[in-house]
Amino acid sequence: MTETVDCLLVGGTVVTMDPQGTVFADGAVALRGRDIVAVGSTADLLQQFPTAITHDCTGCAILPGLINAHAHVPMSLLRGLVADQQLDVWLFGYMFPVESRFVDPDFSFVGTLLSCAEMIRGGTTTFVDMYYFEEEVARAADQSGMRAICGQTVMRLPTPDAPSYDDGLERARRFIADWHMHERITPTIAPHAPYTCTDQIYREAAALCRRYDVPLVTHLSETARELQEIREQYEVTPIGYAHRVGAFDVRCIAAHCVHATEDDLVLMRERSVGAVPCPTSNLKLASGIAPFHRLLAAGVRTGLGTDGPASNDDQDMFAEIHLAALLPKGVSSDPTVMPAREALALATSRGAAAIHQDALIGSLVPGKRADIAIVELGRLHSAPRYTYSTDAIYSHLVYSARAGDVRDVLVDGRFLMRNRQLLTLDEQHILAQAQRIANRINDFMINREDNLLDKIIAVGGVEPDEIFEVQVKALVGEQGEDHVQMLLAHPDVTVTKFSERTQYDTYFLFDNSTRGRIRIREDHRTDPGARLEPKYTITLMAEAQRGEYPSAIVLSRARYTAHAEHSLRFYREYFQPDYELELEKRRQRWRIVYKGEDFALNLDTLIGHTPAGPYLEIKARTWSRKDAGTHAHLMGELIALCGLDEASLVKQEYIELG
Amino acid sequence: MTETVDCLLVGGTVVTMDPQGTVFADGAVALRGRDIVAVGSTADLLQQFPTAITHDCTGCAILPGLINAHAHVPMSLLRGLVADQQLDVWLFGYMFPVESRFVDPDFSFVGTLLSCAEMIRGGTTTFVDMYYFEEEVARAADQSGMRAICGQTVMRLPTPDAPSYDDGLERARRFIADWHMHERITPTIAPHAPYTCTDQIYREAAALCRRYDVPLVTHLSETARELQEIREQYEVTPIGYAHRVGAFDVRCIAAHCVHATEDDLVLMRERSVGAVPCPTSNLKLASGIAPFHRLLAAGVRTGLGTDGPASNDDQDMFAEIHLAALLPKGVSSDPTVMPAREALALATSRGAAAIHQDALIGSLVPGKRADIAIVELGRLHSAPRYTYSTDAIYSHLVYSARAGDVRDVLVDGRFLMRNRQLLTLDEQHILAQAQRIANRINDFMINREDNLLDKIIAVGGVEPDEIFEVQVKALVGEQGEDHVQMLLAHPDVTVTKFSERTQYDTYFLFDNSTRGRIRIREDHRTDPGARLEPKYTITLMAEAQRGEYPSAIVLSRARYTAHAEHSLRFYREYFQPDYELELEKRRQRWRIVYKGEDFALNLDTLIGHTPAGPYLEIKARTWSRKDAGTHAHLMGELIALCGLDEASLVKQEYIELG
Repeated sequence: MTETVDCLLVGGTVVTMDPQGTVFADGAVALRGRDIVAVGSTADLLQQFPTAITHDCTGCAILPGLINAHAHVPMSLLRGLVADQQLDVWLFGYMFPVESRFVDPDFSFVGTLLSCAEMIRGGTTTFVDMYYFEEEVARAADQSGMRAICGQTVMRLPTPDAPSYDDGLERARRFIADWHMHERITPTIAPHAPYTCTDQIYREAAALCRRYDVPLVTHLSETARELQEIREQYEVTPIGYAHRVGAFDVRCIAAHCVHATEDDLVLMRERSVGAVPCPTSNLKLASGIAPFHRLLAAGVRTGLGTDGPASNDDQDMFAEIHLAALLPKGVSSDPTVMPAREALALATSRGAAAIHQDALIGSLVPGKRADIAIVELGRLHSAPRYTYSTDAIYSHLVYSARAGDVRDVLVDGRFLMRNRQLLTLDEQHILAQAQRIANRINDFMINREDNLLDKIIAVGGVEPDEIFEVQVKALVGEQGEDHVQMLLAHPDVTVTKFSERTQYDTYFLFDNSTRGRIRIREDHRTDPGARLEPKYTITLMAEAQRGEYPSAIVLSRARYTAHAEHSLRFYREYFQPDYELELEKRRQRWRIVYKGEDFALNLDTLIGHTPAGPYLEIKARTWSRKDAGTHAHLMGELIALCGLDEASLVKQEYIELG
Repeated sequence: MTETVDCLLVGGTVVTMDPQGTVFADGAVALRGRDIVAVGSTADLLQQFPTAITHDCTGCAILPGLINAHAHVPMSLLRGLVADQQLDVWLFGYMFPVESRFVDPDFSFVGTLLSCAEMIRGGTTTFVDMYYFEEEVARAADQSGMRAICGQTVMRLPTPDAPSYDDGLERARRFIADWHMHERITPTIAPHAPYTCTDQIYREAAALCRRYDVPLVTHLSETARELQEIREQYEVTPIGYAHRVGAFDVRCIAAHCVHATEDDLVLMRERSVGAVPCPTSNLKLASGIAPFHRLLAAGVRTGLGTDGPASNDDQDMFAEIHLAALLPKGVSSDPTVMPAREALALATSRGAAAIHQDALIGSLVPGKRADIAIVELGRLHSAPRYTYSTDAIYSHLVYSARAGDVRDVLVDGRFLMRNRQLLTLDEQHILAQAQRIANRINDFMINREDNLLDKIIAVGGVEPDEIFEVQVKALVGEQGEDHVQMLLAHPDVTVTKFSERTQYDTYFLFDNSTRGRIRIREDHRTDPGARLEPKYTITLMAEAQRGEYPSAIVLSRARYTAHAEHSLRFYREYFQPDYELELEKRRQRWRIVYKGEDFALNLDTLIGHTPAGPYLEIKARTWSRKDAGTHAHLMGELIALCGLDEASLVKQEYIELG
């Protein structure tokens, strides 16, 4: 009885990526159902399967479908949203606010479709994901026909799909239970990283992975800062920490590992952890240079990932392979390290081992699944072809080939792309859906970038309160104390609180002054016994509305003030002011009550300004313009009680003086 | 009178790359003849030029054509020939031997056509070249319609187009004289590098450049080794050296500059030298990480190049821009360095300054030449689009766009590619011509890789001589000296020379023993007064032909022996032996004449071998098999004169013992 097969790929250069590095110059691959049943020369396989339907691959390489071992595929929708920012600005200023507002099931579904279409076009057949609403990622991946490991993200912070990590864990449980019998989609849980998780999250995640026999996906040692912080907190590296909390008791896939120590490498090898650096993302976010050479030297299972397209900005595994081949050479000053075959292995045979699917995929050998990429050779950028050495094909694929050279893609023996036509996905429809979502985000960003209030709220996480501030000040010089004492001595004035402080203010100013201005204040108490920690606030101030009240009393609106969670640098990069001013002052402050209303009495000395003062300032805050009028009236009385005359009053703000 | 224009590019995102970073979201560019006459919004330009023929660029970016500021374009024919080798193996083992045999006018012409086709497809409109038969490069570039600076290479070594550097200088003079009136092609001279040139070459090159007002193209500070060697030789850095020999007295374009010192950077800025790192090539050849950040910080005119496609392996400026944006971030741990706009400038506005053509090209402003690339946005890998910030277009072009996204290309207002169709070049014909040349090289490589003799000759630079060696040896032990003295005492024997030496031999052995074996010998004279420098030789030995003569006399063929110019490591990487053996011996050698024929008498003690000997060896060399027979006969007599008996004779070679 003659064996039959469903399809014979013939006439290509078959790059098996088997352990021997077998290459068939005029080769063929026989497929039956979802499996590879034979690999050999075209002549041999045509003889063995004379009646098979053939698919001509002349002028092409036939290689194992590429494995993108770390991604956040729905983030394709955020591609190009923002770039070239510090990690905290990128994350807290853009990604988190946009994700918390826009990531929903539709976002995860459409974003995944877009990524799958891009990945199939680039020869990728398997990806490992970590995102939110992961059941939608799974559903879209299933629809695309790709193979995927889908990790439902869990962290201790609220996420777009889970207000607490208990909810996140519950989501993950449900997701895995629903999907774990799927042929191509492996559902799992993805504790985000040591710095965003708790011991309990990791332990429960590991338990869940053990129960369903699925791999655990996480981020480890991506940045030097993470390494330092986890060491300070737990006295162990992030990789050591993951081991301690049970993440390595199951099959672990650890993204990045840029800052893995030598001890970490030994631990990873011993516990068969898969390490997945993402060279483009690691460079772009300035995390460092993907440590492929060290990982391979230590015998760690090593794969290759694109990371999310918001930090890459594509999902082009050919570009990653290219970088993975180049970077170790430049860093080690040795051009023989990471030869082309090794680099290609990161996305095929080694990548399969890193995601613990090497029994199934990663090389073209009988018995494995028919996950295959067929790549055109000899286009302009990769011509001519040299064939005197079998290594030439690896060099060709790694240094010359591009995603755009991929002609056909199969997963489980099924064509997902044939002659550059996607067969499972409607490209134009996906593009339109993606742009529809992007347009909403675009509108949000246009408003937010234009509106400093929205921009503060996006990173402050607090609701706005419009506050009216009424103030008057006078240059009092040496007599400052006397004026204060006059006022405090008055029987209608009660002092409720006194403090001394040094305040460092930075003002962000904009060419378009109607946008308002932003003040970042660092406030140090200097009176004995006061709190030692400085207090940081961020305040958005609208333009002062002058001359509305008599006696140089000024009404301004502080539209928002809140604790400043981030650094001055963060805010500078986030708001991108047109110019900045700095002001340092020593302040004595009396909080007083006068006729039932609260006022602040400040005696301020400016540092590095002429005149330095002291200035006497009387201030009141209210929540309505009407109250402001009342306060302005009382303030007129207080000026008189201080013994100040009109001539000494100053209308300008401090930053406008000198 | 209404102004007229030839063509209006409309509806695209016009990225002018002017000093203000002007971007027109729905923009247009008006072209007349070879010039840009207006840039603005589509609405404005349609109103200004109502009768113009329009070219719709909806969904595209319109940007200055990219400038590839350093290349060796004919080397596209060597793309993929060999990779992942040490620089010396790559250069002396592959590039030089192949170039010396195959580079001719046809090679330079066809290789340039192939590169131009690839570069036009990737949006490149200008390139700077350095190669041989540069008039053919110029002719092909002219035919393609591209703009180019073509540098005729000159060095002190023989080149494919000039047996001496005097010939090279003369070639360059003729070339410049013939081409210097051309509109788009700037002919010039390219002294290769400080380590391959002389003071005189640089001085004469600079004089020639001054006379014709053309820029000088050279390589400077590519590798750490170059820096060290030039410092040792000239007590100055390569950049300092170039300055000293007059290269900076004219407009200089210096490729690489990877190892420029801080002083070098100051010098380059002061002398307006254009620096052109080639990030892919610098990584692939392990030269280092292209120092864009340092160059820009120092205010040096900085461009971007692909280098030759034999070390890249493509001429994709989008890939180079991408790397130029990523590498400085990863190296500095700061993701805000080299923002996308700066990276794009390296290939446009800054690149134009680096090649001293910023008055002509590099930005889309009225009066400059209409060298333009039109790039499709919003394909799968670059969708969706964000437009809330003008910076988004830079991020899009640098992090998502690919060479394959380029739709149209114009130079001097003329379409070289339109809707992805090349208009000046016949792509299929070029590919066929390129493969024709590659096939010849491929055949040469197949023969050479198979044939150790060809492979030695390729790096030795000497003609082969087949030598027959006749030898016999005996294990003589303690009595060795006595046997020697017996022979030397015979009246028919005259000693012509005596020496003592220690020899370290490394044998390269191959699974296929018919290929022969290679011996690399390091020979140290130990007798008083002898040369101190060791002598290095490389010898190819065919299989010993045994038993042809009586008395264990062995005939072997040393098919080639020569001075070993390279290191043991070089030969190891070049020949890639299947296994190696090492042999160390102390040798006393007497050269004798017996019956008018020369013989060598060696008393050898092997180190680390059992038995260590001593062995007494009698050897003779001849250039014919017939003479070998005569020598074998006389050798039988010498054995008897030594008093050796058959039993002590040893047939094996030393490396086969123990």
